Amino acid sequence: MPQTPDPQTSRLDAQFAFLNEADRLKSVLRATTLCDGSRRENSGEHSWHLALYAMVLADQAPPDVSIDRVIRMLILHDLVEIDVGDVPIHSANGAAHASLETQAAEQRAADRIFGLLPADLAHSFRALWDEFEAAETPDAVFAKSLDRVQPVLANLLSGGGTWTTYSVTWDQLESRVGNKIARGAPRIWDWVKAQVRPFFGG
Amino acid sequence: MPQTPDPQTSRLDAQFAFLNEADRLKSVLRATTLCDGSRRENSGEHSWHLALYAMVLADQAPPDVSIDRVIRMLILHDLVEIDVGDVPIHSANGAAHASLETQAAEQRAADRIFGLLPADLAHSFRALWDEFEAAETPDAVFAKSLDRVQPVLANLLSGGGTWTTYSVTWDQLESRVGNKIARGAPRIWDWVKAQVRPFFGG
Repeated sequence: MPQTPDPQTSRLDAQFAFLNEADRLKSVLRATTLCDGSRRENSGEHSWHLALYAMVLADQAPPDVSIDRVIRMLILHDLVEIDVGDVPIHSANGAAHASLETQAAEQRAADRIFGLLPADLAHSFRALWDEFEAAETPDAVFAKSLDRVQPVLANLLSGGGTWTTYSVTWDQLESRVGNKIARGAPRIWDWVKAQVRPFFGG
Repeated sequence: MPQTPDPQTSRLDAQFAFLNEADRLKSVLRATTLCDGSRRENSGEHSWHLALYAMVLADQAPPDVSIDRVIRMLILHDLVEIDVGDVPIHSANGAAHASLETQAAEQRAADRIFGLLPADLAHSFRALWDEFEAAETPDAVFAKSLDRVQPVLANLLSGGGTWTTYSVTWDQLESRVGNKIARGAPRIWDWVKAQVRPFFGG
């Protein structure tokens, strides 16, 4: 008779299958470069930087935000890009990022990737990612603000970045990016706006 | 009379000075490659992967471990490499990694890098990094185990990696890596050992 696999071993098999698959996020390139402009940023290191943003800018979050949940959301938030790739916010004149097609592809990717995990973790990780995507809870709104602000700094420090690539205007930056930062972290957007406005001739 | 700077603005100046400096961790290359062997891993994306390890392998931690503190430790743990670089665990026949010289350089790096932050954050981040380095508390011991296990998977999946580079033997892997994984996460080391032993002819 075949041996029944040890449940502990099977669980670790699934945990490591997910962790090994997650490694591929380091090969997903974003439109944004590193701050020194030397190369394009990948979505793995971007996710690390955002988790650090949450730790550093915690005092800018409303009091009902759990920073530890925000950190966990940000660690997971881009995993679907392993299948879908990064869709730059300024590409297709700002229309591709939130398209129904992109959203459907991301849902399929979430099914596959979180589905590698043991059921309890698959469920809790998926719930956290769904919450981030919906951008309705205080935690998700703050996490989304950080996800929008980090590329602004990278563009500013690298001399224009995707603003130049996609010929972004100040009004477009305010509507696609600034309003979303301001929704979760208004004082951060005030500070960033003062840094960035001169680049756009303001 | 010169204007007194707004304290909120000064605080954000310091927070972003630190976050912008942290971007440089993405350019620190480790000896280990990605799991697919395509290129060397950098310390920023490595830190992200470890934070994900902590989320996924939380059930392997002893009950007195706070996974949220472990995640925060892992996000910060390699920042000193911006100044010092990564010192591979198997380099110099295993002697360079924990040398007094490396430790002193890392202390100076921690002074400089965490010193960019506002004082309250500088203090709390430095305390967390010191705790990780000392590897005495349950949180730090578990975090160190994860830091040791992730490159083992990368080496295994990429066909040898730094084991080949540095002609590592099974006994060396057990003493430099296995024992430290087993200290914080014995069942993880049992599982990993069963995957890895055949590579070393066991």
